[in-house]
Amino acid sequence: MGSILNIRVILVEPEHEGNIGSIARLMMNFGFSELFIVKPMVKLGDETRAYASHAQKIITDAIIVNDINTALAGVNYTIGTTSISATKPGNLLRTAITPEELVKTMVIKGKVALLFGRESKGLSNIELAKCDIVVSIPSSPIYRTLNIASSSALIFYELWKSKNKDQRGYIEESSRQNRERLVKLFDKILEINVLPTYKKKLTSKAFQNIVARAFISKREATLIIGALRQTIQKLSSSA
Amino acid sequence: MGSILNIRVILVEPEHEGNIGSIARLMMNFGFSELFIVKPMVKLGDETRAYASHAQKIITDAIIVNDINTALAGVNYTIGTTSISATKPGNLLRTAITPEELVKTMVIKGKVALLFGRESKGLSNIELAKCDIVVSIPSSPIYRTLNIASSSALIFYELWKSKNKDQRGYIEESSRQNRERLVKLFDKILEINVLPTYKKKLTSKAFQNIVARAFISKREATLIIGALRQTIQKLSSSA
Repeated sequence: MGSILNIRVILVEPEHEGNIGSIARLMMNFGFSELFIVKPMVKLGDETRAYASHAQKIITDAIIVNDINTALAGVNYTIGTTSISATKPGNLLRTAITPEELVKTMVIKGKVALLFGRESKGLSNIELAKCDIVVSIPSSPIYRTLNIASSSALIFYELWKSKNKDQRGYIEESSRQNRERLVKLFDKILEINVLPTYKKKLTSKAFQNIVARAFISKREATLIIGALRQTIQKLSSSA
Repeated sequence: MGSILNIRVILVEPEHEGNIGSIARLMMNFGFSELFIVKPMVKLGDETRAYASHAQKIITDAIIVNDINTALAGVNYTIGTTSISATKPGNLLRTAITPEELVKTMVIKGKVALLFGRESKGLSNIELAKCDIVVSIPSSPIYRTLNIASSSALIFYELWKSKNKDQRGYIEESSRQNRERLVKLFDKILEINVLPTYKKKLTSKAFQNIVARAFISKREATLIIGALRQTIQKLSSSA
């Protein structure tokens, strides 16, 4: 599992080593490897490497270029990022979509460039004009502007997810059969307890609800099924 | 639009100023304000403030405490984060869900703590055991571990989105006391069932997990508590 999409990350005149390093690490976290840096404003030194952590290779392999057009050579789609999205619908240059909207429609085989601007003032209008699509992250109106490492985290993650959709969480989920068995056993206990019918129904539904909303794992279901079985045995033998 | 959810962010022994500052900024970006820091390993100095950017107030207002229990005072739900999620389905302590799964079911009015561990080694098992729910970010198997500032970006953003979408159905959540009562009653049944100790512990943890992940409602808890009480009575009278 190398690069999951044919993505080139391009940092335009980044000003802080910590961000360059953080982005390199995030690239590796989410399966990207190609980093271009246009005129870095700092040396890629110790701090960059500290923040990159185990993603040193991405820093070592990073290609430093002098202008944005060189960085965009061979690119099929260019995606820019901005925190200043259009307030007036007429501003087509900064008409931005969210990362989720981006991945929803993005079906691209060619090379895609993801452009991140300067920490201090983002991408210029001239740079944004080179972008096919502009992405902006919804955030609090009190403080809209995300750090570029944070923005990249959110965009990389959406891209990663869209490519790894079938990969859900880490829980080995229980089968529907297992969940139904679990609920049946619980119902059996309610039966033995001789609850009024309406209360039996409600309590059963409550139990079903929590089993469902919890996304109960196979292991958890097995354990609780075991306990309920034993309970029923005890209850029955005492009857 | 102040704090969008009643969230307390808790950093446990953070080791790098840049991360503390970045997280403060992200909190403000996504509408959170309450920051607790348990035994910071660094001073909150110039670097912290540089990374915090316009979120200085969050740093100034941050509450420094000496132990995690103090930080968790008054909290109704504790959500831990880990990059080491269970590889074996048997490991109930690190049975983690994704940020998306978290927000899918989370409807909480009480105080929610979001716990982030040390950069070097995360949260300990003892600390994770204090968590109702553990969240982990899916990432590349080549390099799983995200920086805590990156993790917090992804989790904060999901919370922000979930709050700024259409409101979902309203669930009156159960109190911590009620949930504890529920688990205690379930434990009591396991006790009566005379399970081997290790299995009792696992089964109890499985039950705790699903109760927590389901964000069980007050009504649901009350109903199941009733059923368990009756079961215990029956079991006891038959002994």
